Amino acid sequence: MQHPGKVWLVGAGPGDPELLTLKAARVLSRAQVVLHDHLVSDKVLELVPDGALRFYVGKQAGRHSVPQQYISQALVRFAASGLDVVRLKGGDPLVFGRGGEEAQALARAGIAFEVVPGITSAQGMAAYAGIPLTHRDHASSVVFVTGHAQPGNDGPDWQALARPRQTIVFYMAVCALTRICRELVAHGMPADTLAAVVERATTPEQRVIQGTLLTLDALAKAQGVRPPALVVVGDVLHLRAELGAHPRAPHRGDCSQVEEKRSRRVRA
Amino acid sequence: MQHPGKVWLVGAGPGDPELLTLKAARVLSRAQVVLHDHLVSDKVLELVPDGALRFYVGKQAGRHSVPQQYISQALVRFAASGLDVVRLKGGDPLVFGRGGEEAQALARAGIAFEVVPGITSAQGMAAYAGIPLTHRDHASSVVFVTGHAQPGNDGPDWQALARPRQTIVFYMAVCALTRICRELVAHGMPADTLAAVVERATTPEQRVIQGTLLTLDALAKAQGVRPPALVVVGDVLHLRAELGAHPRAPHRGDCSQVEEKRSRRVRA
Repeated sequence: MQHPGKVWLVGAGPGDPELLTLKAARVLSRAQVVLHDHLVSDKVLELVPDGALRFYVGKQAGRHSVPQQYISQALVRFAASGLDVVRLKGGDPLVFGRGGEEAQALARAGIAFEVVPGITSAQGMAAYAGIPLTHRDHASSVVFVTGHAQPGNDGPDWQALARPRQTIVFYMAVCALTRICRELVAHGMPADTLAAVVERATTPEQRVIQGTLLTLDALAKAQGVRPPALVVVGDVLHLRAELGAHPRAPHRGDCSQVEEKRSRRVRA
Repeated sequence: MQHPGKVWLVGAGPGDPELLTLKAARVLSRAQVVLHDHLVSDKVLELVPDGALRFYVGKQAGRHSVPQQYISQALVRFAASGLDVVRLKGGDPLVFGRGGEEAQALARAGIAFEVVPGITSAQGMAAYAGIPLTHRDHASSVVFVTGHAQPGNDGPDWQALARPRQTIVFYMAVCALTRICRELVAHGMPADTLAAVVERATTPEQRVIQGTLLTLDALAKAQGVRPPALVVVGDVLHLRAELGAHPRAPHRGDCSQVEEKRSRRVRA
């Protein structure tokens, strides 16, 4: 009987390729098949071995995409045929990554798998835009919630979100921004609560637009914000003036290790 | 005038040294001074150059520790004297890591700094214990909250936490476990809601104890759970029977790249 393959569900991090973990880089460098998302950067994909099969199965807001069921089936079939498969996702596979669903499909098919966590966008944004997710003076909890309304689902629990002393990060939130600001105020959050949109967090194109629940929607529309972007709400944004102004290392430098690793691999 | 140094506030991840990011490994390998916490593993500390100054400034539950103010002062002084300083913390610096406070101290002193995010314990636990943090069928949001009661603070917002369709992860939660289970039920969460303690997530000693809000406290006491541990509450735990049973790669393998990198550095 053929030796069975295995699947790694791997988080590629939020954008900056150097935010990949050592484990993700190792697993990726040995993959025989890679199925990757729209949000995975080219620099990360350069780590895929030259001989590996590479499939783009990304989803972009508003565009036709590969159904989730086909992706899960493909993972099962490649592994069942004896190949080592990496399913590479932006951010973390188990935070709005549908990694749980893919893991279930693999478990049900008896395929061995492992999950490799990744830096999720909210963390990348926090570090690169100067917005602590928690802080003794401002927030004793942080909540990640999807801005996407799902079919058959009422959407976020606005009542729970509109409470003080927490940081809220909305994922996939650009299209829902008008509703987010309106609902939070309608559920009792002060209209002058600070809120920001962070577009393309951790990449050289990162853009932060900050306002309040009253002003952010108009500001974001005026600036033409587009996905991928996060929406952050909470008093921790008071710290950004102080923390976000500091220069970061240039991005070319940030990629040096990935490039170095790649050239080593190519030479080897 | 002396060339000023810089401080990197770096997340070391949850325990498995291979969950360090490429950027964290690079920054650490060039550090001249490293101040590290209790929760940073020895394998990660092996990446520190031999000539670098290394200080342990960790906090352990219930033990005497270096006051936060001294740590911030030390970061400022080392950098002001021209050294490149890494402040290495377990998990992510901006998720219950007090990284925001250290960043403020640096900003106020005019010291250049950069934050390097790390895999936070909840993500490591999710990946290594088979507990998705979000899932279409079970949780549309995830909240991280501290189990530590802070002086002058009423503690978590139990009303907001005790709501359906979210995953709650309590950090530093062992001592608060009795209270967590009691308060969630008192605020309306069903007593048979699944809950688990995950001790030493992502390390070879990881232990998962699962029960309900009614039974978990007694189970954890019977098994002698000790910090560091997370408490997870939510319906995503229904998936663990299916996802958590899968074998992971052996841990010796997990460390291979860290060791390889280190030996390269030592030879160079």
